[in-house]
Amino acid sequence: MLLGKIVGTLVSNRKDPKLEGMKLMVVQQIDLDCQDTGKYVIAVDAVGAGIQEVILYATGSSARQTVLTENKPVDAVVMAIVDEWEVDGVFRYQKYPESQ
Amino acid sequence: MLLGKIVGTLVSNRKDPKLEGMKLMVVQQIDLDCQDTGKYVIAVDAVGAGIQEVILYATGSSARQTVLTENKPVDAVVMAIVDEWEVDGVFRYQKYPESQ
Amino acid sequence: MLLGKIVGTLVSNRKDPKLEGMKLMVVQQIDLDCQDTGKYVIAVDAVGAGIQEVILYATGSSARQTVLTENKPVDAVVMAIVDEWEVDGVFRYQKYPESQ
Amino acid sequence: MLLGKIVGTLVSNRKDPKLEGMKLMVVQQIDLDCQDTGKYVIAVDAVGAGIQEVILYATGSSARQTVLTENKPVDAVVMAIVDEWEVDGVFRYQKYPESQ
Amino acid sequence: MLLGKIVGTLVSNRKDPKLEGMKLMVVQQIDLDCQDTGKYVIAVDAVGAGIQEVILYATGSSARQTVLTENKPVDAVVMAIVDEWEVDGVFRYQKYPESQ
Repeated sequence: MLLGKIVGTLVSNRKDPKLEGMKLMVVQQIDLDCQDTGKYVIAVDAVGAGIQEVILYATGSSARQTVLTENKPVDAVVMAIVDEWEVDGVFRYQKYPESQ
Repeated sequence: MLLGKIVGTLVSNRKDPKLEGMKLMVVQQIDLDCQDTGKYVIAVDAVGAGIQEVILYATGSSARQTVLTENKPVDAVVMAIVDEWEVDGVFRYQKYPESQ
Repeated sequence: MLLGKIVGTLVSNRKDPKLEGMKLMVVQQIDLDCQDTGKYVIAVDAVGAGIQEVILYATGSSARQTVLTENKPVDAVVMAIVDEWEVDGVFRYQKYPESQ
Repeated sequence: MLLGKIVGTLVSNRKDPKLEGMKLMVVQQIDLDCQDTGKYVIAVDAVGAGIQEVILYATGSSARQTVLTENKPVDAVVMAIVDEWEVDGVFRYQKYPESQ
Repeated sequence: MLLGKIVGTLVSNRKDPKLEGMKLMVVQQIDLDCQDTGKYVIAVDAVGAGIQEVILYATGSSARQTVLTENKPVDAVVMAIVDEWEVDGVFRYQKYPESQ
């Protein structure tokens, strides 16, 4: 999975019937330092993520393994909202930074 | 999924029998600002997209999840025509810009 | 799918039994202007393509969706011989250019 | 499969239900000389790998072939802890270097 | 499929049980001129390839289509040992060059 930030939404009225009702999110890929990598993906939201939230997304056939996306023609899904991660023992991202 | 623009069509008379009757579109990949990324893909059209339309396409096994492409040897499908998307609250693309 | 040109053949006598009898083609990837992109792939030929022919190939699990390649350990298949394509209304490739 | 080093962990409380109980690891991709390639992946740990361990990870649908990840929306899995590898007869990495 | 050269082996004692008994090879990707591309992959050997042999490998779900790798968490398999290939009528590689 890769890290991303939800930066917007996409609207499509004419689409494959299987996509009906799915929320399509504009996701900017980010690196381990939360920096924009310059890549994006349009992903189905399976976890109710909001704008500006840092998330994890899966691609390929794995994107069809949520209840929402099963057998659907989607190749990217937001499957987790990220709380925090650390690299070499130091937090690189914390959704709710602890007071110090 | 990634964003693309339909820029043309491709004709093939000798092809795998399973592809009979499918419309093959030349798709230029675009970025979140509608700029050509320099990459392309030849994709099956599952939604009746027209030339110059901005679309969403899925790749890999997910491209075989539309009714049209099931069990077919295709690895890219146009599965949505895009109306609009926004990034950080600002429209980057609108098919039908509102009058102001 | 991506565009390619058949530039040669590959011979392998010791291979997975499932590959017996398959023709392995050396395919140069080309862009929308028929220019070599510098990338290649070794693909199974499912349509009887000949040397120098411009073709379409599919990769990943989709490469196993032809009758020939079903359940075989191949990740690239030539599934169409290309007659022509156009971009913005202008032919970029024509196998049989019309006399003018 | 590609080589990686476990450099940290990721916490997510709101995620697809199928991910419950899985340990998400921050993996830096490394090359054959153990050097960081600058790429990363967030992968499910299927073998109990620890921080700083050198591992092997699989991506795509293959990431769902461990007992732990079957039918889960994950596209990367740590499936082996690496003891050593050699290139051209010379060890490039040894977890437990032999005394000389 | 892509071309590679077997340059070494990898040892892992703690791995997913499904990988028991599989031989993991260090494969350098090569181009059509047999030159190292700088990329590598760790692949399961399904054909008994030896060090320095030029081989063909398949990736993704196709890597699980050999008898050896079925339903295993592996995303790359060596499925053919290459004897020769030609480009534009000229051999670029011959395992057993003909005497002239």
